[in-house]
Amino acid sequence: MQKNDLFECLFCERTFPADVFDSFCPVCGEPLFCSLPVGQRRFYPNEIHPLRQSRNFLPLTNPNLALDPGTGQTPLVSLDRLRKTYGLPPLYAKLESREPTGSFKDRGTAIAVQKALSLGISKIGTVSTGNMASSTAAYGTRFGMETYLLVKEDTSEEKILPAAVFSSLVFKVAGDYGKLFEKSSEIGKKLGIYFMNSVDPFRIEGYKTAGFEIYFQLGRKAPDVVCVPVSSGGHIIGLIRAFEDLYSEGLIDHFPVFVGIQASGCSPVSRAFSLQKDKVSRTDFPGTLAHSISNPAPPAGNAVLKLLRRHKGFMLDVPDKDILHAQRELACLEGVFCLPSSAVTLAGLLAFRKKVNLEPGATCVFVITGTGLKGIRALDPGIMNIHRSSLENLGYMIERHALKK
Amino acid sequence: MQKNDLFECLFCERTFPADVFDSFCPVCGEPLFCSLPVGQRRFYPNEIHPLRQSRNFLPLTNPNLALDPGTGQTPLVSLDRLRKTYGLPPLYAKLESREPTGSFKDRGTAIAVQKALSLGISKIGTVSTGNMASSTAAYGTRFGMETYLLVKEDTSEEKILPAAVFSSLVFKVAGDYGKLFEKSSEIGKKLGIYFMNSVDPFRIEGYKTAGFEIYFQLGRKAPDVVCVPVSSGGHIIGLIRAFEDLYSEGLIDHFPVFVGIQASGCSPVSRAFSLQKDKVSRTDFPGTLAHSISNPAPPAGNAVLKLLRRHKGFMLDVPDKDILHAQRELACLEGVFCLPSSAVTLAGLLAFRKKVNLEPGATCVFVITGTGLKGIRALDPGIMNIHRSSLENLGYMIERHALKK
Repeated sequence: MQKNDLFECLFCERTFPADVFDSFCPVCGEPLFCSLPVGQRRFYPNEIHPLRQSRNFLPLTNPNLALDPGTGQTPLVSLDRLRKTYGLPPLYAKLESREPTGSFKDRGTAIAVQKALSLGISKIGTVSTGNMASSTAAYGTRFGMETYLLVKEDTSEEKILPAAVFSSLVFKVAGDYGKLFEKSSEIGKKLGIYFMNSVDPFRIEGYKTAGFEIYFQLGRKAPDVVCVPVSSGGHIIGLIRAFEDLYSEGLIDHFPVFVGIQASGCSPVSRAFSLQKDKVSRTDFPGTLAHSISNPAPPAGNAVLKLLRRHKGFMLDVPDKDILHAQRELACLEGVFCLPSSAVTLAGLLAFRKKVNLEPGATCVFVITGTGLKGIRALDPGIMNIHRSSLENLGYMIERHALKK
Repeated sequence: MQKNDLFECLFCERTFPADVFDSFCPVCGEPLFCSLPVGQRRFYPNEIHPLRQSRNFLPLTNPNLALDPGTGQTPLVSLDRLRKTYGLPPLYAKLESREPTGSFKDRGTAIAVQKALSLGISKIGTVSTGNMASSTAAYGTRFGMETYLLVKEDTSEEKILPAAVFSSLVFKVAGDYGKLFEKSSEIGKKLGIYFMNSVDPFRIEGYKTAGFEIYFQLGRKAPDVVCVPVSSGGHIIGLIRAFEDLYSEGLIDHFPVFVGIQASGCSPVSRAFSLQKDKVSRTDFPGTLAHSISNPAPPAGNAVLKLLRRHKGFMLDVPDKDILHAQRELACLEGVFCLPSSAVTLAGLLAFRKKVNLEPGATCVFVITGTGLKGIRALDPGIMNIHRSSLENLGYMIERHALKK
């Protein structure tokens, strides 16, 4: 490992030398995070690539970006029509759906692949069925690495194809999915494969760059509320760590209220939060259409609870019908087509304001984690405005339906 | 119309006042293009948005970009592994697949919507089945415009959904598709709907911004070869016009060789080019899996022939089996997952170098027009590396297949 890199445990507060093959605390079993020096860090805003822009805040010295497919620099767009329709404060969407493979995972993969490069590791992999598999496969391919994707036995080919299309070896593995994570770690150590899974410490550092971009895009300010979908917990932790960095360097004057959101059909972290527990319990029978955030035993769940409490954040969950409605509102009012797992941000903010008084001037950011193009098959054409016409009657039909609309 | 905007005919060389409801030459029936003053134009490289960066070169005065979803600024990535594998000159891919709705169409829609805004037009539409419908619907929604999409009667719902998901009215129209274009113009004039179809003059000006970005991304240089898929002809004309602008302003010292590429199963422009004709003839029975470029009667086909001859460009076509192979090579060697209609660029360059001596130092750019995520269902899982394993045997299986690979 690079001698400079250290991991630390949020729970027992011990520090360990970094090890890409083993990133859970040997004492308490919790995921480890990168331990970085605080103070006198600065940004390089004239750099285009986020890994260069934020290099002082990342566990990277000299990234080799010649092969990077264009990570980050995603737009922050205003959602004025949603704001007016629902009487909400100033709203923005951070479009992580615009990443190279269409999800936020690319920011994490980008830095983890750099770490592999710097350590001379040429084999990478991940345990995933969706966005993370696609991301790891695309980056592994671009950087010429052997790439191994481990998925559940019953994963549909439709879900695998956007990952299998790249130069990767995909294994559908029979047996318990939780055990597959442990097995990946065992195999990784033995065969020298860096399994950059969902709560990999370097992956999480990569997610920080989205937080830094939000800060710059708002004119070097922190938003007041950040709504983030929660699955394994890695993503929201990365975003919280970004604002911890900004706060500790004195660059922002307040810490945003993070609102982590799950689907009610699989909400282990939200449940633990509302019961004021410190530990997340496994969800035995998960059932939600927001597949990308349906993680019944989130490995960083306890860490999410700890960080949200530290920063006065919230966790909540929303039912599938609200998620579908939110997905449609984002598309039809704002032209933002995202996965149901991203639409929980809107459903979540609408639920959140029933619990907490939202200041009219509070700036809210939705983190749109993945493109709707990966979920076309799940859409219901029945609710869309699709009509039939002859060529002759077309003018009449258009006038008629325009009026009805 | 805005009094400053003029259209001109490439064939009879007449100039007309611009009219968004009628952009074909009343004398010769060819599509009209924007007529812009030449000389003393400059870029604003410190601006982030391409419509502001290139505003001197565009028929726009003061764009209102507050609602723009983040058009353009797409990466130009090197394709070194493809280059080495096939013994090609320096290769780059311009990833138009990274646009807001996943295709190059967004650049054209972005400027056409600005034009609609500046003229106080609140109803827009398009005749399309795929990328252009999705783009027009997303932008129309963001800008709060009524949006009408006219598609063929037999268009599958899978193709319509990425457009119908936004706030648009979709009409499946029975009857001849060619006549549908004429009908859209008639209805547009009557009902005040700006149908921004494939060879709309403003749409084509928007495509220029990708050419300008390539110029900047190569360090203010023109590439030597640009490979572009050809369907209606509007896209390649926009890119050629960008380099005409750069050349006429003295910013580049040579004109790139444009190579327009069609699928052999629907290649009216390529056929006319190889027969040295001035006019394109309709393809009666089109048949190719590259659906997005399967246009049997391209409205700007004659204009493409004229411009390619003026600038010593080429047209060629490639069979479906080469297109599929190229799609796979782009994904597996470079991590670039695109539609078959974009993969014709690689298949085309490999065909082109059999006809023409490619200098070893010639810089080649592939314009990757659309994301592969819109064509997942057409992929063949049979050719991918997908295996089964038990949890126990996984280590052994990984070692075995890694060796075989």
